[in-house]
Amino acid sequence: MGSSDTVISIDAMGGDLGPAAVVEGMAKSAEVNPNIRFIVHGDRAELEAQIAKRRIADRCEIRHTEDVVTMHEKPSHVMRHGKGTSMWSAIDAVRAGEATVCVSCGNTGALMAVSMIRLRKVPGVNRPAIACLWPSRNPSGFNVMLDVGADIRADQDDLLQYALMGLSYARNGFGIARPRIGLLNVGTEEHKGRAELKVANEMIEAAAEFNDFDYVGFVEGGDIPSDRVDVIVTDGFTGNVALKTAEGTANLISEGLREAFKFSPLSRIAALLAYTSLQRLKKRIDPRQVNGGVFLGLNGTVVKSHGAADATGVSAAIKLAFQLAQTGFSEKLAARVASATDAGQIAKPAKETPDAEKGKSST
Amino acid sequence: MGSSDTVISIDAMGGDLGPAAVVEGMAKSAEVNPNIRFIVHGDRAELEAQIAKRRIADRCEIRHTEDVVTMHEKPSHVMRHGKGTSMWSAIDAVRAGEATVCVSCGNTGALMAVSMIRLRKVPGVNRPAIACLWPSRNPSGFNVMLDVGADIRADQDDLLQYALMGLSYARNGFGIARPRIGLLNVGTEEHKGRAELKVANEMIEAAAEFNDFDYVGFVEGGDIPSDRVDVIVTDGFTGNVALKTAEGTANLISEGLREAFKFSPLSRIAALLAYTSLQRLKKRIDPRQVNGGVFLGLNGTVVKSHGAADATGVSAAIKLAFQLAQTGFSEKLAARVASATDAGQIAKPAKETPDAEKGKSST
Repeated sequence: MGSSDTVISIDAMGGDLGPAAVVEGMAKSAEVNPNIRFIVHGDRAELEAQIAKRRIADRCEIRHTEDVVTMHEKPSHVMRHGKGTSMWSAIDAVRAGEATVCVSCGNTGALMAVSMIRLRKVPGVNRPAIACLWPSRNPSGFNVMLDVGADIRADQDDLLQYALMGLSYARNGFGIARPRIGLLNVGTEEHKGRAELKVANEMIEAAAEFNDFDYVGFVEGGDIPSDRVDVIVTDGFTGNVALKTAEGTANLISEGLREAFKFSPLSRIAALLAYTSLQRLKKRIDPRQVNGGVFLGLNGTVVKSHGAADATGVSAAIKLAFQLAQTGFSEKLAARVASATDAGQIAKPAKETPDAEKGKSST
Repeated sequence: MGSSDTVISIDAMGGDLGPAAVVEGMAKSAEVNPNIRFIVHGDRAELEAQIAKRRIADRCEIRHTEDVVTMHEKPSHVMRHGKGTSMWSAIDAVRAGEATVCVSCGNTGALMAVSMIRLRKVPGVNRPAIACLWPSRNPSGFNVMLDVGADIRADQDDLLQYALMGLSYARNGFGIARPRIGLLNVGTEEHKGRAELKVANEMIEAAAEFNDFDYVGFVEGGDIPSDRVDVIVTDGFTGNVALKTAEGTANLISEGLREAFKFSPLSRIAALLAYTSLQRLKKRIDPRQVNGGVFLGLNGTVVKSHGAADATGVSAAIKLAFQLAQTGFSEKLAARVASATDAGQIAKPAKETPDAEKGKSST
């Protein structure tokens, strides 16, 4: 492998479409990105066949594993018995420093559980979070929201950490120099919401100055896809409900559209004429284009691709993983959180923590 | 007034479009419903002119008020100084028993605050709730969700009460004999979610048998518009975020559709051809068709129409108010909650409470 290559660890077995879709996604990424290499975890015979078919054997190292984590296995069971799985092996390659980022289409709960015990939390982080991308009116086409389901609880300190982790992610993952951060609530007035939200509101406001972000204050559910914010902070319960509600709403409307266009001969012709325009819209709000929930707050980065992701979706997740690896995201996030924790309050980062020394100075 | 007429108390002043839209909505309802009459609260001169224009003077009694609650007034301020407003007067007509249901397009927080102090909570209800209608795949076209923002907190007892209140509402408002009730969570497995949800899950399950509803267990955000449930129970914080997130998602997609159809000459022609079909879809997911958040758990029913409601929206809210008045909904809900509370557990209603004696026996 070239010394400037970035190595991504791939759990090839967990997705709904099996290793064929995952390897096809890897091939798509390899084709456009000469600096990417893979350590691929799963059944050797099956992977060798798929990799040969896609002609990327020179970019892959295969690690054979016997077991697979299924979608319905309980995280607690996988934590105890998951050692021989492709998921465990894929995370361990990041733990060992052989790869920078792990990508998996597998069971989210199990992936978070194994990531927690193998990679451990960054010093100063109480609760890791899952950040997702949300189609939005911003020029980039999406916003970042966290936590969308790593933990069902979050107090004011956790919400502040989410803000700082979301800041690092938006800056390193998407090059937004000065992200605008909002805190999800049931109204934008300062007197609204739960007690911990009012405290977090003041804490994040205070943190903005020394961490180079803009705090826009409370935002509502309707603001999640808006262009007045880049990062939306919330607890994992609310974030998960909001995410699934939005997906459910989009599905309901899509179904309605399909029915509407089937209704009469005239509307069928209309559907044909509008085909290109509708495909353009579909692409814009297509979750495959912005595929990849990222686990934040661990010693190493894990990208959770959608379980049903096809090659396009897997490739999008790998692209995100590569971008995060390139910018030294994991180390910068650790330094950002550590600086806030060391100071016992929110202050300008004085120095990086030892763990972060290999990272660059801008966190 | 005929003795069989149902009287609805109307706050004519609080909506974004002013009393003209409200009176036009009243006229629409009066035209199709010979058994409806109104007590209308607001500026007498303006109301007289609008009512004469719509020729419904024989169906209306005007109560002059000097003041209006604006959209940005704080509930606490309106509670102290709101006595001369059309909102206060409209609720007081229900308190006095002159009207059965109050309809207002005004400020939600203020309307709930005034409703609470003037109508008081039903004995046994800890937190009143706001129930909204949600476009769904059910034959009726919508599901009921509560609480969507009356209170930001709800413990297990509150969630059980919401289930019982939602049950009464679905049965009396929409004639669903045996509603299917679900509890919103971040997963459908029993071990998921916050502690109070796990307890509420068992309590609602136990209540199902003696209260003639089907409990479907935990549901996720994506299930809110589904046809496997009629009533979704959640706390007011989560419910409000989910509602606004769904509205925001629908708006984003609508904008995208409009842009897609404007993109090329071909897509403009397509938009023309598809016009009727798209209007049909729009109507199906049009919030105006299912307009009306209902305040549950008070001694009297209050229907909150959308602030921006036009005559169609106001008329839909009045139709809902009429239906609730006809079925003696308020008394039945009180009896349902009281029977659960009296028993100290969930048991078959033994007798109605005094307040409920004027209602019918099926709660």
